[in-house]
Amino acid sequence: MHREELRFETPGRGTQEITREVQRVIARSGIDAGMANVFVHHTSCSLLLNENADPEVRRDFERFLSRLVPDGDPLFRHTDEGPDDMPAHVRAALTATTLTLPVVGNRGALGTWQGIYLFEHRTAPHRRRITVSVWG
Amino acid sequence: MHREELRFETPGRGTQEITREVQRVIARSGIDAGMANVFVHHTSCSLLLNENADPEVRRDFERFLSRLVPDGDPLFRHTDEGPDDMPAHVRAALTATTLTLPVVGNRGALGTWQGIYLFEHRTAPHRRRITVSVWG
Amino acid sequence: MHREELRFETPGRGTQEITREVQRVIARSGIDAGMANVFVHHTSCSLLLNENADPEVRRDFERFLSRLVPDGDPLFRHTDEGPDDMPAHVRAALTATTLTLPVVGNRGALGTWQGIYLFEHRTAPHRRRITVSVWG
Repeated sequence: MHREELRFETPGRGTQEITREVQRVIARSGIDAGMANVFVHHTSCSLLLNENADPEVRRDFERFLSRLVPDGDPLFRHTDEGPDDMPAHVRAALTATTLTLPVVGNRGALGTWQGIYLFEHRTAPHRRRITVSVWG
Repeated sequence: MHREELRFETPGRGTQEITREVQRVIARSGIDAGMANVFVHHTSCSLLLNENADPEVRRDFERFLSRLVPDGDPLFRHTDEGPDDMPAHVRAALTATTLTLPVVGNRGALGTWQGIYLFEHRTAPHRRRITVSVWG
Repeated sequence: MHREELRFETPGRGTQEITREVQRVIARSGIDAGMANVFVHHTSCSLLLNENADPEVRRDFERFLSRLVPDGDPLFRHTDEGPDDMPAHVRAALTATTLTLPVVGNRGALGTWQGIYLFEHRTAPHRRRITVSVWG
């Protein structure tokens, strides 16, 4: 079991690609055939496994979520931490907090167009902690 | 591979925290560094990894899902088991049936504010079965 | 670590059951007690763990997603590959790309009513690649 903790500073709401950082942990594990897991230790950011070619895809996804779970929605009563806090929890629950993928040839076996993204759902910048585990 | 089956009786729609029960299985496994998986053997309840401080967060999440996937929606044709049955399947598919997390120091390495919840989506009480697996 | 790659030809949007194919890989692994993972190497199709009895359930789920993420929605700017492309990415992100389940008695320990489905989100037929990994 090879394990590393990664830290990211997010500039506020939106996606940042972390595929390279995850692949480096897998490379350092020396494990040729196995599995890897990426786990986010937070409830207001999440993981997105999505298209890595056109950045408009992630922006469209952000537009979709902003419409589906609007900030300041009067439906929500948990509002102490701001109008974006409860929407952030919902967005995190609708996407992924944990991601398990195959390791083949000492690399995460992503499809050609698959990238791993850290999705910050709060509007303010945050420090985020992710654990990458590799076994096999 | 350490494995235990847990049984829960739900009082009907809503969340109940199962973090303690999952952590106890991990403790009993004796595994110091590894992975754990929580798996729900049903299609009308699910798992939610979400904020464990303010209970209003889970109620807000319930309010959001009740609006997004309303009971008795005329869109649905699978209605034999009641107006809450098909919404329960949709709610389960939009959240999580399986949850994999790191085990560090013989504990599930959840973030400070992360709790694991069993989310009952049917309005009537149900008996639910969950398998917790630990390896490393 | 036992691993097999499966290929499927989808007839376009909709679900096809792959439970039997996944169970066969688990059977061939010879692993009695362990875990299995199903991973889709694409960003416009996904996995659905849902009711396997009434096919209307999957059609209702398709109806729900078609309303929630309509093709040709003017919200989306990533439209080069057609009106169903960006909705396909969103639908994939709202469901599951990776699925981890317990293996008990050399079988995936699904609930009585749980089936594994490949969910094609593009309207045109596609060739899809899935990796099934088994360990324990």
